[in-house]
Order: sequence, then C-alpha cells, then structure tokens
Amino acid sequence: MSMALLFPGGPVAAAEAALARIAAHDDPALFLARILAEAVRARAAALAAEGPQGRRLYGLPFVVKDNIECAGLPTTAACPDYAYTPSEDAPVVARLLAAGAILLGKVNLDQFATGLNGTRSPYGTPRNPVAPDCIPGGSSSGSATAVAAGIAAFSLGTDTAGSGRVPAMACNIVGLKPSLGLVPTLGVVPACRSLDCVSVFALTVEDACRVLEVIAGPAPGDRYGRAAPAGWRAAPAPQPHWRLAAPLPDQLVFDSPAEAALYEAALARAGGPIQRVDIAPFLAIAQRLYDGAWVTERSAALRGFLTERPGSLHPVTRSILEAGLDKRTIDAWDDFHAAAEARRLARLLFEGVDALILPTAPGLPSLADLAAEPVAANSRLGTYTNFVNICDLSALAVPAGFRPDGRPFGVTLVGPAFAEARLAGLGAALHATAGVGLGAMGGTVPPPPAPPELGPGELPLLAIG
Amino acid sequence: MSMALLFPGGPVAAAEAALARIAAHDDPALFLARILAEAVRARAAALAAEGPQGRRLYGLPFVVKDNIECAGLPTTAACPDYAYTPSEDAPVVARLLAAGAILLGKVNLDQFATGLNGTRSPYGTPRNPVAPDCIPGGSSSGSATAVAAGIAAFSLGTDTAGSGRVPAMACNIVGLKPSLGLVPTLGVVPACRSLDCVSVFALTVEDACRVLEVIAGPAPGDRYGRAAPAGWRAAPAPQPHWRLAAPLPDQLVFDSPAEAALYEAALARAGGPIQRVDIAPFLAIAQRLYDGAWVTERSAALRGFLTERPGSLHPVTRSILEAGLDKRTIDAWDDFHAAAEARRLARLLFEGVDALILPTAPGLPSLADLAAEPVAANSRLGTYTNFVNICDLSALAVPAGFRPDGRPFGVTLVGPAFAEARLAGLGAALHATAGVGLGAMGGTVPPPPAPPELGPGELPLLAIG
Repeated sequence: MSMALLFPGGPVAAAEAALARIAAHDDPALFLARILAEAVRARAAALAAEGPQGRRLYGLPFVVKDNIECAGLPTTAACPDYAYTPSEDAPVVARLLAAGAILLGKVNLDQFATGLNGTRSPYGTPRNPVAPDCIPGGSSSGSATAVAAGIAAFSLGTDTAGSGRVPAMACNIVGLKPSLGLVPTLGVVPACRSLDCVSVFALTVEDACRVLEVIAGPAPGDRYGRAAPAGWRAAPAPQPHWRLAAPLPDQLVFDSPAEAALYEAALARAGGPIQRVDIAPFLAIAQRLYDGAWVTERSAALRGFLTERPGSLHPVTRSILEAGLDKRTIDAWDDFHAAAEARRLARLLFEGVDALILPTAPGLPSLADLAAEPVAANSRLGTYTNFVNICDLSALAVPAGFRPDGRPFGVTLVGPAFAEARLAGLGAALHATAGVGLGAMGGTVPPPPAPPELGPGELPLLAIG
Repeated sequence: MSMALLFPGGPVAAAEAALARIAAHDDPALFLARILAEAVRARAAALAAEGPQGRRLYGLPFVVKDNIECAGLPTTAACPDYAYTPSEDAPVVARLLAAGAILLGKVNLDQFATGLNGTRSPYGTPRNPVAPDCIPGGSSSGSATAVAAGIAAFSLGTDTAGSGRVPAMACNIVGLKPSLGLVPTLGVVPACRSLDCVSVFALTVEDACRVLEVIAGPAPGDRYGRAAPAGWRAAPAPQPHWRLAAPLPDQLVFDSPAEAALYEAALARAGGPIQRVDIAPFLAIAQRLYDGAWVTERSAALRGFLTERPGSLHPVTRSILEAGLDKRTIDAWDDFHAAAEARRLARLLFEGVDALILPTAPGLPSLADLAAEPVAANSRLGTYTNFVNICDLSALAVPAGFRPDGRPFGVTLVGPAFAEARLAGLGAALHATAGVGLGAMGGTVPPPPAPPELGPGELPLLAIG
C-alpha cells in the first residue's frame, strides 16, 4: 500500500516527511492555510503515544480543499472576501481525524469550485509537479498537486462536474468521485448542492478506496445524503471478466494523436471485447450544466454575495455565476426532464456493462493554452466528466500514460451509483499496467488484487455495491 | 372481493350491469368519451368466449381519467381545444386490457389535473353520488364518482398533489396513490412530470391493490420510472402491531367538530399508542407546490398552449398556470433544497413509524362553498395531501365515516416509497371498522386479511415493500 510506503516509520516520521516535502516543493500557491509545523508535530507525537488502535489512516498526512470546513481554519473557497472560520470540522474531516490522519492544511482551488483548470484563483495557480508547464487541473488543484508531490498521503477534493477527476489526470494520480450522497457534503461550500460530491485523491486506487471507506456513510442532517446498499464496500473488487463499453469512435476527441493512442492502449489493457456505445445523450446533458438550470444552482448558493459584492469575485467566476441570475424556471424544467431521461439511459447502459471507459479529458492544456482561451479550454476539459454527476454515476480516474512531450493522460471508469468497488477493481488493474509512476514520486504502481479464480463452467457473480 | 360481488356472473353480465348503472346514474358531466354500448358488449362477449385464462381483472368494467391516453379516444384533459386522439394506449391502460378488464370510457377531471375539487371543467361537474350537494373532489372527479356509483369496478386517476385521494374521500371510496415511478406515466398528460402518479380508485383496499399490481412495473422509455424493491407486492400485508403517528393536535384543522371526532375515532380504531409528530416541515413544503417551482413545472408542460391559446383554458386554471411563466430558477433552487430536506425528514420519520395517519382533507366543501371561494377552498383541500408526492411517499385514502349531515370524511395513511402493502394492511382494517358502505352502493366492507399469528415472545417482522 503506497501511502504506507511513502510515509513509513509511524506518525512522527510521516509528519517530518510531509513537512520536508512541503519545504522542498516550495509552492506559495499551494496552501491557503497551513497547520503550524509545531502543531503538526504535536499531533504526530500524540498519535505515536496512543498507538494505532486499529485506526485505518493512522499517521497519514492529508490536505483538504479549501471549500471544506476545518475547525479553526478559514474557509475561503479561494475568495478572500468570502472567508469565514468555522468552529467545527465538516463530518468528512472529523472522520479522517478520528481515523488517525494528520491534517496539514487547506489548499487552493478554482474559486468556488467553478472551473476544471486550477488557474481561477486569486492565490495563484498551484504548480503541477508532474508537468510544470501545464495546468494542475481544477477545481481541486491543490488537493491533486499535494498528493502528486508526495506532501500528502491523500487529500479531499470536491467534484460537481469533474473537479475530482481532471486534476487527477493532470497530476498522474488517482481521483475517486463517489456516488451522489454517499459521502456527507455538510460543511462543504456549495457549488451545485444537488450534485456536489466530496472526492478523494491518492497515489493508488487502493489508497483512495481506503479513504473513501472512512468518509462514506450517512451524517445527521445531510439532506442530500443517501444510504448505500447493504454490504457496500469501496475496496477494489476484482473480477475475472469485465463487460466494458467505450464511446463510438466519432465521439472521441483528443488534443493529439498521442492521447488517442494512449486511450486505445488503455482499452487494450482493460482486456476483452469492448462494446461501442452512443454517448450522445450524455454529452448533450453535459451542455446543460453550464448553459441551463445548474449554473443557476451555483448562483443561488452564492446569491447574497454575488449581488452585494460582485467585485470580490474572480472575473471569470463572476461572469459564469452572474449568467445564472436571470434564468427562468420554465426553461429549467426542460433541463430536469432531460436529466431524468439521461439517468434512465444510464441505467439501461449499466444493465449491460460494468463500466464505461472514457478519456478523463481530451488532453491536458499548458498554462499558456489555458490563458489563451480561459473559458473554451476549460469547457473542453469537461467533455467526459460533466455528465457524470447529473446522471447519478460513480467514477474513478486513473493515470494512463504520458505523451511523448511528457504531458500526462488518464482514463476514467464510469459506473452506476454505488459501483465504487467494481470500478476500483478494474481501475487498480489498469493503473498497474499503465507504465506510470506514482504522481511525481516515481516508484511502481502496486499490482492489483487478484480476481477470484473460477472453476470450469462457473460464471462470475456480478454485483453492484 | 367487492369487485366480483358488484359485477357477478362474468363479463357479459358485468358489462350489462355497468351499462345499466351508467343509464341510471344519468350524469352528463361524467363521461367525456364513451365506448359505444355495442362495443362494450362485443368486448364482453369476446372475453366470455375466451374464458378467464388466469387474467386478474377478467370481465371487470373500468373508466379512465381523461388525461391518460386510450387508443382511438380523444384525450382532452378537460380542455376541448387541447384534444388529440392517440393511436396507442398508455401502458397502464394496455396492462388493464391485457388483464381482461372492460373499458367503458374516459371521464371528467379538473382541467389539466389542476385542482382538488372537480368543478374546474368546461364539461360540468360530475355529480357526487354519495353527497349530491357536495363537490366530487378532484382532479380525478369522474374516476371517483364512477366507482362510487357502481358504474366501474375500479378506475384510473392521477395524483400529483392529492388528486387521487381527495375525490376518494368525497365519494366514500378508496384511493391509492402509488410511489413515484412505480406505475408508468407514459401516455399521461403531464401536470408536474417529476411528481405525477397514476392512481387507483376502488370500493375496497384489496380491489385497489389488485389493480395496482397489474399496472405497476417498469415500462420502456419511462424516464421517471423506478424499479420497486425486489419482492414488492401491493396486496395488503397485515401486521399484528403498527407503529403509528399523527400530527400534533394544533396541526389538525377540520371544517367542523364532526370531522375532528371522526378523525379521533379512526385513530382509536387503528389501535395502539399513536406517536404525535411535528408535521410543520411537510406543511411548509406543501406551500411551495403552488407558490414555487412546481407550478412552473405545470406551466412548462403546457407552455406552447398556454402562450398561444390562453383563452382556451378554464379561467382559474389559466391564472394558476400563467403565474408560473415568469418565475426565476434562482428561486426554484430554494424550493428544491427545501424538498430535499423534507424528504430527509420524511425518511427519518418512517424509520420509526409504519404510517402517518392524516385527515384526507379538513372536510368536504359543498358545491356552494367551493363556488364562493374557488381558490381558497381548493387550497384547503390539499392541506394533508400536497406534500406527499414532493416527499417521495406512498399514500392510501380510506373512508372514515360520515358527518351527521351526511358528508363523507376520510383518513389517509402515508408511508415511505414502496410501502403500499403495509399501508393496505392497515387501511383494510381501518376501512372494515369505519361503519361505512361501499361508495354509494351500500353493502358491507369486507373484513381485512388476518395478520399472522405470533407465538409468545415473537416480534413482528416489519418490512418495506
């Protein structure tokens, strides 16, 4: 398990390793609030004195996207004038601390989690440790770069339209977007409350799943919470055979032939026949995310702030959110009925396949590319991520190799709600064969768990959750 | 089983009985389209020639609310200028015909299923056969009066905010509002598509459940359809003990002390301790149904018609629907987030209780009462029904006695989604002890199925679905 390999020797050594890597990484755009080194050391010493006590994340350092509340630290959502300091941890943070993890601080993001690129922050753009001339991805930019740089064993991001997946590709790490309602969103600054998910970044699939199992489960008062099916687990569930799908060839867009080749190679590594399916309805519903009702959900969440202090917003964020102010409900229902239809089509699709394998994004823009087209390049990044939350699906982004020029590429496995274990089983296998190191840390991706062996004539039992 | 008692002797006799009762009832405001008597007789003769072949509704006459498509008959939704003639049956109608039932025709409703009183139709107000000076209830006015008058063994209505329950109370019959998505709404003129349900009226609970089992289940292309939990049945599931709840006393409003007494008597007949619960959050979300986002869902469904031919609408219906045209999505999100919270509170409630027992309505207005206050009196009718669909609940309205002046009263059992069998078990017991006849047909309510006997120390097993 890579977290333990990267942070060996117990909590005190792990804390020192994290602090040393923060210093070595030396990115002023990463942390928006840091726990003082003395406090990190004190927490580690206290954990060491207590011993593991069976805690699942004992002594592992982590960072939290700065739209999730941590007691006593400001929550800015990358908007200085929005900042407030909560007195309690969000349930997800409290669960990680109770599991023995060591909080290092709050990290940068695209303002109000609106964006997929990582440059929409007044605090600067976190440096991509894998491809420094490229965007780090967003909106969970700091959460991904901290993991890729080996600073944090894992991190929390959020994901409404791809913010937990695009940065994983950008940073050559794993991004796990859980099912809607599986992880409490209490204490999270809302983007689209009905679609928001807390997500997990880690160097390996197994690590991400371990974290997810700690943070998943109902929390009192969580109106968008849902109970997982009985027996739900996140741990990778390997299968001897997979029923896999990929988009029709003309629905695949890439930035260069290199990404296309890496994608086809990932399909080949997945093994077995791949069913080509028409994803046009999903691409169509994604268009409505920023043109229709859901942009207004973002505007509604920040309504007072948006109307009273518009000058406090990043100009791109402001233009996006202001577009939501005047939309009419009669048009929104077209979006909702279309979403219901897309969810129906997704249910149909996943009756026949275990996972849809998509490019995480068509390719990774450089910082210069993004600056040249700040909205269009961002939109393109969401091509294969935007529809997932609207369609009530789970998703897992895994690295899939590098272009000849060194830019990372990734694929995302999409499944129905509560299919995390199944996606993880396939994702761990794909990751292990991708020929990539762990983030920017090199090393070797560990082998996936072995599938159960079947006797002659036995059929694999396929189960969701 | 009362359907068989009311229509004995096989299809031919049943058809003749239905035709004779249509003639005797002689209500020009009931049918909007009738199957010709010769065609009804031909259908009955064909069924008689085939024999039952195990069909569950063999030879039973029924009527369909005129917002549900029947092949070859106009669908008006009680708006003559809106009429169209579909070439196929709605899936629910097709299922009833396949189960051997005999279609008599399409019946009157509050225009576009908007209303709870039955007077909002250009085709007149169907006569309430139980209390002729009172409203028949709506919007499924004809569906309820036809069953109460013994014309139909059962009928289809629709229910978005109470249209399948209020008319049941008005007509001293049973109204079953299934869980959202359990019964296909394909071929139904939309009111609020996301909340619409096809509902069932019958003289007894067991009859209604039998019909529901025929019409329930997924249909291809039904975007708001949901799979029922494995093993779901509608048939009454009696229990030796019930965990029941009722509103706080000051949340109970009645038209007269007589309704209050009938309600308290129903609670006493339900047996056992009744937990008093605060239903304020549910009453609050109901307010949003006509003030907020969902009225716009109605407007959206009729958008073209509403803007191009507003003069074709009933004046009250028009004023309601036009109010939805200009609402802003940013306000709608307040409604949706409030709905999510109300659904959470409902889930919490039904973790601890099997059913919430409510008055179906505060009381039944006379035709004169309703004419005096066409909007206010209608709103009052929805006090205890409006929140149910928004909160994703199932409900069963059963008769609960008569006021001294002869107006019927009823109670509604509310449970979580897919709890139809449980509600039916309690509802059948309550109905049998209510001291009421069957609709306007007199007779005796049959005894409910007996609960399983428990040995000493055994606890009842409570299961949803």
